[in-house]
Amino acid sequence: MKNQLLECVPNYSEGRDAAKIEKIADCFRGKEGVRLLDYQTDKDHNRMVVTVIGEPEPLRDAVIASFGVAVDLIDLNKHEGQHPRMGAVDVIPFIPCRGTTVEDADRIAKEVAQAVGEKYNVPVFLYEDSASAPHRQNLAAIRKGQFEGMAEKMQDKELWAPDFGPDTIHPTAGVSAIGARMPLVAFNVNLDTDRFEVADKIAKRIRHIGGGWRYIKAIGIDLSEKGIMQVSMNLTNYQKTAVYQAFETVKMEARRFGVNVLDAEVVGLLPMEALIDCASYYLQLSEDFDPMKQIMENRLLEDEE
Amino acid sequence: MKNQLLECVPNYSEGRDAAKIEKIADCFRGKEGVRLLDYQTDKDHNRMVVTVIGEPEPLRDAVIASFGVAVDLIDLNKHEGQHPRMGAVDVIPFIPCRGTTVEDADRIAKEVAQAVGEKYNVPVFLYEDSASAPHRQNLAAIRKGQFEGMAEKMQDKELWAPDFGPDTIHPTAGVSAIGARMPLVAFNVNLDTDRFEVADKIAKRIRHIGGGWRYIKAIGIDLSEKGIMQVSMNLTNYQKTAVYQAFETVKMEARRFGVNVLDAEVVGLLPMEALIDCASYYLQLSEDFDPMKQIMENRLLEDEE
Repeated sequence: MKNQLLECVPNYSEGRDAAKIEKIADCFRGKEGVRLLDYQTDKDHNRMVVTVIGEPEPLRDAVIASFGVAVDLIDLNKHEGQHPRMGAVDVIPFIPCRGTTVEDADRIAKEVAQAVGEKYNVPVFLYEDSASAPHRQNLAAIRKGQFEGMAEKMQDKELWAPDFGPDTIHPTAGVSAIGARMPLVAFNVNLDTDRFEVADKIAKRIRHIGGGWRYIKAIGIDLSEKGIMQVSMNLTNYQKTAVYQAFETVKMEARRFGVNVLDAEVVGLLPMEALIDCASYYLQLSEDFDPMKQIMENRLLEDEE
Repeated sequence: MKNQLLECVPNYSEGRDAAKIEKIADCFRGKEGVRLLDYQTDKDHNRMVVTVIGEPEPLRDAVIASFGVAVDLIDLNKHEGQHPRMGAVDVIPFIPCRGTTVEDADRIAKEVAQAVGEKYNVPVFLYEDSASAPHRQNLAAIRKGQFEGMAEKMQDKELWAPDFGPDTIHPTAGVSAIGARMPLVAFNVNLDTDRFEVADKIAKRIRHIGGGWRYIKAIGIDLSEKGIMQVSMNLTNYQKTAVYQAFETVKMEARRFGVNVLDAEVVGLLPMEALIDCASYYLQLSEDFDPMKQIMENRLLEDEE
């Protein structure tokens, strides 16, 4: 593996037919520079969510190939499920993971969008950090109306002309959203209190919408069955609002209430960089420290000499 | 790569002949489960130091193969250099690196020692954490007398019978030391003072020999050309005396002198675990946190499914 890696979490509108599911997953298996980490299917949602990491170009090519397989296998006219959807490949986020930025993710997202638009005649809307207009950043706004309503929606060419591909929906594969976004770090801090208002007030003070850090989303969570309360956060750009900043801010605000922090938890995956940055901060490591060269495991992920 | 990895830093008594050097390095190239990180040669020392990481069994086999190549290529009777040496393969330390303990390193060290003793008729002394007696832990004690004096030294069978292999030296390849040891983390803390005695006194109070932490070695270093002083540490078992413990202890002792910590530095390589442990401590991550599963890069180092 190279030092430059992106994560991709494509969502396919097939969560029931094991043979089709495996054909899609196979697009990410045994490919040099690509690693299938996980795929989850949900019969009720009738949806498949793949988690794959890879070097930008091999990852791009595998995603394009999987798009073609999904277009061949999935007919949205026959698709039903609880999860909203607008395409055979509903949405493809590209996420910087290691040695990459959101700009790298954006470049690959646009290459995939162009390729699938041309090869498979599927209209593509760029979304999130790749969006071509503010009203197209939010996936829910793009997907509103779903597959069944998309043909009509796209007649409003001013608002909903696609960024790539034809300007009418694919008859069986619908439309897709593709874009770059930062990884979410789900980070919760547990408070030694049984007063919900403490967690609630802290969450409201530290989150962006309430005047707090630019990349913190937060809510208070009532864990009174455990006798504690929680500030539950999504850090939407850990490179700009760091995990240690979120943590120290919760501690700072908790002092107003005379409440102690019990512990913290990371939910799901996060990039090594997010935690190494915290170690560097607290240990006051000088700027000479080079994680890519000095952390052994990073050497293992380098190219072979 | 598997989750279980060892580091190995074998030292060969050849630092001048490029063809021979490459033949030794080749033993670690293109091998599944083995990664050659680095090799350095020194003409004055006439010595080659390889840094290689691998899964225990493939690493073991590559080291054994390199031993055979070195025995074929190197004749200690014709060897001269500034660095003390006693064998064609002078010393082979195995070091836990990722998902392994010093016991794993010890097991592989003994398997290599047995194999090279039998296959190549080279006597082997187990050293460091693999040593069979206290007087054989220290490499310098084993190597004293060097190649030229080893035949006579080994006549004292009570003190210097080898752990594996014949009880007389190999005529051209001498003897070898093989053993397990913990990785050293070289960690320095810079102090905002021009008084050397501050760094010196802190070093003496925190190191094991002075009553301090079990696995800290420390000295004061005079960096008065930069207007500062340094506490320079070797952490000889970061799993038992952690980097954050060393750092916080220096800060604690510096307060006695009204001196602030400026910053800190890591010299050379360290395992990811050593820094993730610090992030976990400072962020108060609960014990549910599983770095192997939750840090993306660790998933990349797993076996392919």
